[in-house]
Amino acid sequence: MFSIFPTARLRPSPFYQSALAEGMVAASVYNRMIMPTSYGDPEAEYWRLINGVSQWDVGVERQVQLKGPDAGRLAQILAPRDLSGCKVGQGKYVPLCNHRGTILNDPILLKLADDLYWLSIADSDIWFWAGAIAAERGLNVEVSEPDVSPMALQGPKAEEVVAHVLGDWVRDLKYFWFKETEIDGIPIAVQRSGWSKQGGFEIYLKDGSKGTRLWNIFKEAGQPWGIGPGAPATPERTESGLLSVGGDTDDQTNPFEVRLGKYIDLDVPDDVIGIKALRQIKAEGVQRHQLGLILDGETAKPLGFQREAIEVDGTRVGTMTNCNWSFRMKANIGFALIRADVMPDTTVQVIRPDGPVSARLVPLPFL
Amino acid sequence: MFSIFPTARLRPSPFYQSALAEGMVAASVYNRMIMPTSYGDPEAEYWRLINGVSQWDVGVERQVQLKGPDAGRLAQILAPRDLSGCKVGQGKYVPLCNHRGTILNDPILLKLADDLYWLSIADSDIWFWAGAIAAERGLNVEVSEPDVSPMALQGPKAEEVVAHVLGDWVRDLKYFWFKETEIDGIPIAVQRSGWSKQGGFEIYLKDGSKGTRLWNIFKEAGQPWGIGPGAPATPERTESGLLSVGGDTDDQTNPFEVRLGKYIDLDVPDDVIGIKALRQIKAEGVQRHQLGLILDGETAKPLGFQREAIEVDGTRVGTMTNCNWSFRMKANIGFALIRADVMPDTTVQVIRPDGPVSARLVPLPFL
Repeated sequence: MFSIFPTARLRPSPFYQSALAEGMVAASVYNRMIMPTSYGDPEAEYWRLINGVSQWDVGVERQVQLKGPDAGRLAQILAPRDLSGCKVGQGKYVPLCNHRGTILNDPILLKLADDLYWLSIADSDIWFWAGAIAAERGLNVEVSEPDVSPMALQGPKAEEVVAHVLGDWVRDLKYFWFKETEIDGIPIAVQRSGWSKQGGFEIYLKDGSKGTRLWNIFKEAGQPWGIGPGAPATPERTESGLLSVGGDTDDQTNPFEVRLGKYIDLDVPDDVIGIKALRQIKAEGVQRHQLGLILDGETAKPLGFQREAIEVDGTRVGTMTNCNWSFRMKANIGFALIRADVMPDTTVQVIRPDGPVSARLVPLPFL
Repeated sequence: MFSIFPTARLRPSPFYQSALAEGMVAASVYNRMIMPTSYGDPEAEYWRLINGVSQWDVGVERQVQLKGPDAGRLAQILAPRDLSGCKVGQGKYVPLCNHRGTILNDPILLKLADDLYWLSIADSDIWFWAGAIAAERGLNVEVSEPDVSPMALQGPKAEEVVAHVLGDWVRDLKYFWFKETEIDGIPIAVQRSGWSKQGGFEIYLKDGSKGTRLWNIFKEAGQPWGIGPGAPATPERTESGLLSVGGDTDDQTNPFEVRLGKYIDLDVPDDVIGIKALRQIKAEGVQRHQLGLILDGETAKPLGFQREAIEVDGTRVGTMTNCNWSFRMKANIGFALIRADVMPDTTVQVIRPDGPVSARLVPLPFL
């Protein structure tokens, strides 16, 4: 392994000092920011997420803010999902596609007001995309990056901690719904959300100068529930079938290939970007689909930076886009982006750096 | 420091195995790819660039390919610089701006044919930008990422190595001009270019499966000239006044603020993105400009991930956007993005993590 070279081109999040203080040992770069990925004991961090409550610096989940009279119109033009029923205080998962129906990003859309939306994005420059579309269509909307940085509390005990800090009203928040509030004078939005399937909340800090204070409020409140630092946990997200756009997708992937068809509404207006292509793809049927892989072998062999080829009888049928040791399944598990005619229960060979490994295809999620 | 967490979301370049074999110890992430930044002895790597020849994996400099009848038209719409005289085989440095005149990227444009251009980009998703503009304006052009990855030979002896491998014709290449050719059956384009001011070439590999072979051809050929591995060297680029978009710029920076006015042609057609805003900015005068800083102190104190405030008499006047130890000037030097009325020879205070440090403002470049 090698170290990250510091430069002002890569930004820290408002929780960076907290992450350092908690003992961060590994990180990634996401939206040109430093994202902590481990504090030195991945298995302990995993079980804390599964059984307790884990505190994450996910400030890299940047917001693309749409503000102005045409904010809602731009949101709908960008998203091939019907947003007409979206209420203030509601969030929705919206895969964004280009004009060819290829996935660019899969943000959570937050409607803060009729003229104010955030797209809480994955790792790509949606500012450019949204800004270009807004300007080219002459819309009256400003696209910007506000001073907003999420911190996540994830795990079955997250609700106890968040309710202890903010009040029992948070228990009534429905999935992806949120509320703007403040704690000790720190402006935040609180959403039932997070990149795990273990339950929890994202706390959107609206004043980057107060990251350490916000971190410590939740850290201290969480002590009775054994809170500790963590990060989006690749074993858990793999078990739970959560998609990583850019990792599990390539520059040809459409939403139907990666189990996102349920978030696409083909009857949105024709001016929605990519909708015509998506209708055609749906009509013609997809060429690839996404399945799980359970690999033979009893020691952890995670994927590195390279996707690995998948073969059936010596013919390449797809690639493995992630692979992690599942502490619950006691196996290496991964995602396959694979020819649509290769079905679950097929035995395939994954061409790994050390040689081929047998694997069984299964539907996602694993757990 | 901390390690980079491997994931398929971050790609290696075709020269990644070579970089590992050469002993890479530090890297950055650039265009969601791994960019080697050091092989363990930054000072030796610096002097090799200044006095000899250094071999760089800069595969992260991705190409945004514009192909089709409207490729040239799209290039001109994207670039507020007159491209009407650009010849096949010629390259040009073209700051790209949004509709407000804010810099998005500063690629080298390569004209490969009347209907084929590459934008060899810095670190941001210009695919999205160019793709959105092309689709929204109904242009007949395909925007894609081709299998093209640059390797750089930089330093005063680079020309000897490249001429030894490819022939003396490379000595006649003018700055940013290029030629497509092949070596041992490996398709490449060779350009006089590179992110240093020490002279040299970029070799654009057009078949990603042949990175190790291409690396080794130049490595072996360069032995008589003492070739060795290196990377874009922040001390040298700082001494030479080279801009890092994203590092030295923010989401408000226009080209005039950062010494790029000479690459802007205000008389390009009105349909060029940002040109109206740039004319207005030029007419009104800029609020900030970019100068060099020579800091007091005799030990290396590079900038980390955070820009640092610059003050005059206790008033904040700008930020220091990079800082490195100059082995030739024997001082910490950096770039200031600073109020336009603060002039060279002013003494300022840089508010560093360990406390304020005095610095003198000077014009760029330093050397």
